[in-house]
Amino acid sequence: MGRYDELMSLSLRKGFLIPSAEIYGGLAGFYDYGHNGARLLRKWEDLWIGYFLSLGENYHLVDTSSVLPYAALKASGHVDLFNDILVYCTKCREPHRADQLIEAATGTSGEGLNVEDVAAAIQANRISCQRCGGTLGEPTPFNIMFPLALGPRGEDKAFLRPETAQGAYLSFRREFEILRKRLPLGLGMVGKVYRNEISPRQGTYRMREFRQAELQIFFDPETFGEALPLAEVEEVTLPLVRVNRREEITHESVKELLAEGDLPPFYIYHLAKVHEFYLRELEVPSEAFRLYEVSETERAHYNRIHFDVQVHMDSLGGFREVGGVHYRTSYDLSHHEEHSKERITVFHGGRRFVPHVLELSFGIDRNVWALMDLGYEMDKKAVLRLSPRLAPFACAVFPLVNRDGLPEMARQVYAQVRQGFDALYDTSGSIGRRYARMDEIGTPYCLTVDYDSLKQGDVTLRERDSTEQVRVALDGLRTTLTSLLERTLSFEELQVGG
Amino acid sequence: MGRYDELMSLSLRKGFLIPSAEIYGGLAGFYDYGHNGARLLRKWEDLWIGYFLSLGENYHLVDTSSVLPYAALKASGHVDLFNDILVYCTKCREPHRADQLIEAATGTSGEGLNVEDVAAAIQANRISCQRCGGTLGEPTPFNIMFPLALGPRGEDKAFLRPETAQGAYLSFRREFEILRKRLPLGLGMVGKVYRNEISPRQGTYRMREFRQAELQIFFDPETFGEALPLAEVEEVTLPLVRVNRREEITHESVKELLAEGDLPPFYIYHLAKVHEFYLRELEVPSEAFRLYEVSETERAHYNRIHFDVQVHMDSLGGFREVGGVHYRTSYDLSHHEEHSKERITVFHGGRRFVPHVLELSFGIDRNVWALMDLGYEMDKKAVLRLSPRLAPFACAVFPLVNRDGLPEMARQVYAQVRQGFDALYDTSGSIGRRYARMDEIGTPYCLTVDYDSLKQGDVTLRERDSTEQVRVALDGLRTTLTSLLERTLSFEELQVGG
Repeated sequence: MGRYDELMSLSLRKGFLIPSAEIYGGLAGFYDYGHNGARLLRKWEDLWIGYFLSLGENYHLVDTSSVLPYAALKASGHVDLFNDILVYCTKCREPHRADQLIEAATGTSGEGLNVEDVAAAIQANRISCQRCGGTLGEPTPFNIMFPLALGPRGEDKAFLRPETAQGAYLSFRREFEILRKRLPLGLGMVGKVYRNEISPRQGTYRMREFRQAELQIFFDPETFGEALPLAEVEEVTLPLVRVNRREEITHESVKELLAEGDLPPFYIYHLAKVHEFYLRELEVPSEAFRLYEVSETERAHYNRIHFDVQVHMDSLGGFREVGGVHYRTSYDLSHHEEHSKERITVFHGGRRFVPHVLELSFGIDRNVWALMDLGYEMDKKAVLRLSPRLAPFACAVFPLVNRDGLPEMARQVYAQVRQGFDALYDTSGSIGRRYARMDEIGTPYCLTVDYDSLKQGDVTLRERDSTEQVRVALDGLRTTLTSLLERTLSFEELQVGG
Repeated sequence: MGRYDELMSLSLRKGFLIPSAEIYGGLAGFYDYGHNGARLLRKWEDLWIGYFLSLGENYHLVDTSSVLPYAALKASGHVDLFNDILVYCTKCREPHRADQLIEAATGTSGEGLNVEDVAAAIQANRISCQRCGGTLGEPTPFNIMFPLALGPRGEDKAFLRPETAQGAYLSFRREFEILRKRLPLGLGMVGKVYRNEISPRQGTYRMREFRQAELQIFFDPETFGEALPLAEVEEVTLPLVRVNRREEITHESVKELLAEGDLPPFYIYHLAKVHEFYLRELEVPSEAFRLYEVSETERAHYNRIHFDVQVHMDSLGGFREVGGVHYRTSYDLSHHEEHSKERITVFHGGRRFVPHVLELSFGIDRNVWALMDLGYEMDKKAVLRLSPRLAPFACAVFPLVNRDGLPEMARQVYAQVRQGFDALYDTSGSIGRRYARMDEIGTPYCLTVDYDSLKQGDVTLRERDSTEQVRVALDGLRTTLTSLLERTLSFEELQVGG
């Protein structure tokens, strides 16, 4: 079984990811999160919100509509430019996404090609239908937004949003007013977005409904860099894949990047912060993380500078995109100002200008998948090594046996830890089997009530990764769990202390 | 200014609720949550998840797709029955929702009427167009789901989900297997749903995109009641509006309701739990809460017993629906079994049966609006009295003045409390003005660094509701805040202790 299949099997068996409407045969491009996946997802979101909205004092969470009017998406360029190039097989009528066909046939990226480029590439490389080998037809642009008709006569044309970003841009003017006209202003959002992918595939990697976590930072390009605490990150070394050195990862310190001067300081600072989020908060191993510079032809129409955030996933064959750092300039706000006829230009620091935008964008589903890929081990036993802060359940409570007053005490412990922690209670099967079940869904701590517990008023606390145990008194149990989860106390320290 | 307008003004000025795509003139039926609203919303969700998923050991959070295939909604009855009755004016072509026209003209509910009833009621009451007075045309059923066409040829017919419930029903079979075939099984979800309302109105009360928090409890109808801890709630008195006594609120204890025997014990138990959630967790005053029994003609096609959860809102003219307790029987699972041809019948407790469903359903937007309505006071000063656990920000940190080392210390305090609490930092305007700003967005505690703070290593902690202050040492600040927010320490106790 390949790595992808191993993870999908885990997902289905344990309720992480499940094809939507499974009893009706599923729905291509749609997945549900089961009872473990949903908790992991929400914890990832909480961690993201906590980290990224703390990057500035004037950074805030918003939650805007997932339906946007035609006019707004016309202004943003999505109505005209948010296209994939579609090629039908003339024989079997199978639809193909042209860039994927080209990449599969040539090994090089087909992103950013126009209709003429695609036609030329198909001819030059003699690409035929992946399904039946038939001749491919004319490539045509295909807009991947889902249209909606609102009202009983369908009189209002709208779309499901293709990114959360536009909601933040449409909110900028009012939030800037409410928040007393300060820059930088950050508007962060987590939420679902929708794209009518021509050929959804690879599980959650390319879905038609998916989740984004995006922070839009609105700033004055003349002053933003100076206001940031660059000194705090200047020793950080970043693993980069540059446009002109595709063959390897270049390790450069923030200090070196600043000295080189081809990226603006504010941009370098945020690359370092994204790096910190992955390594420190998500606990991704440093060798599994890199920042991949996207070339001019591959970039979206609104981006001046663009690095993809990539994580190594065996299940998807290597480093894959899980996010991006996008310098969108004043593109979006200027277009909305022009099309809406409302003034979005601000007066700030003695000047009038349209604020620039730095977007830190993350695909939540891809990130969750990446953590499962990095964390799942099946060597001797199956264990999912997630950060304790992200594990669906922080702990589980077991009575060693189902008699002699142990279940009664275990239930009390369960009631106690449930105040403040996601906890499971399990009485079925041997204790070893219960530990194994928890290992496989990533539960970092198991609390077992045994015969000594009755006398001593304590439990054994077993750690997932070391499989070692230590006795912890009920008195300090919640405090101990909090410290372990916040990583202010290590399990080794707890062992020594006990 | 009416109460509704007062709340809308607060919403816009402070970033709770904002019309979507405001710079393009808004989009009827869609609202955004601004930087205060989004935090309030997420905290309400967290509170709901914490409370309702703790009702059972086998109750779990899931997160399913917001797009459902045609076949699933055909099976659930939504394709055929999820209609409102639409009447156009023959003169101005304005569309009207028939039940609203009838209710406005006659004062009695028009819900549950069929096309013939509506035509008769329009004629009998001589109802004309609310807009132009013109003659109304023929009433016709209008399906309020939003259709979607998936794939490049739009080959897969689907809809945006009109309720989160169906996702849980479609997940039941797999989750039941994964969770080792135990009943009761609870699947809870928070998420967006979509309805193409004919005439969206009253702010967030009737939107086209809105949020639900729903718990579906799957159970064996022969044993569920006995397994619940009814004794724990038997003294609880519930404020009810019964079908046969519409004119007043009847106060009946759980014990009395059990003795009467016209509602099943499991249903009464959950009415008591919903009551507890509102009074204890959301801190809704008891006189503002009631449970309204919905009659047979008004009930949806799948409900056998249905009480609406209602909260009194001055802004909407009285008690209004914010949720419902729905005994859906085996309606949904049976229909999905029949249409999907997959076995959903379970073997449990020695019998084969299709589990029954109790649905606890809440409209999140309506609940958030209700809390703003109940909490907002404008008498002498503007203050939003939200439960500290729900307030967008738990605390704010101020330096008394912007000199003499006070801002430096205040920033340290801010950095400290930001670990674990949503906190604001504010230096602008007089301290009184800063307190007033926090009162209006409901921030329960303000921490001010003054000259004594520099010497003593403490801050003043000011409470929103009493406007009184007490000094708190920095050492124990986070612990004190946690205790205040969890309501294990009252501000009065803190004052005495200090």
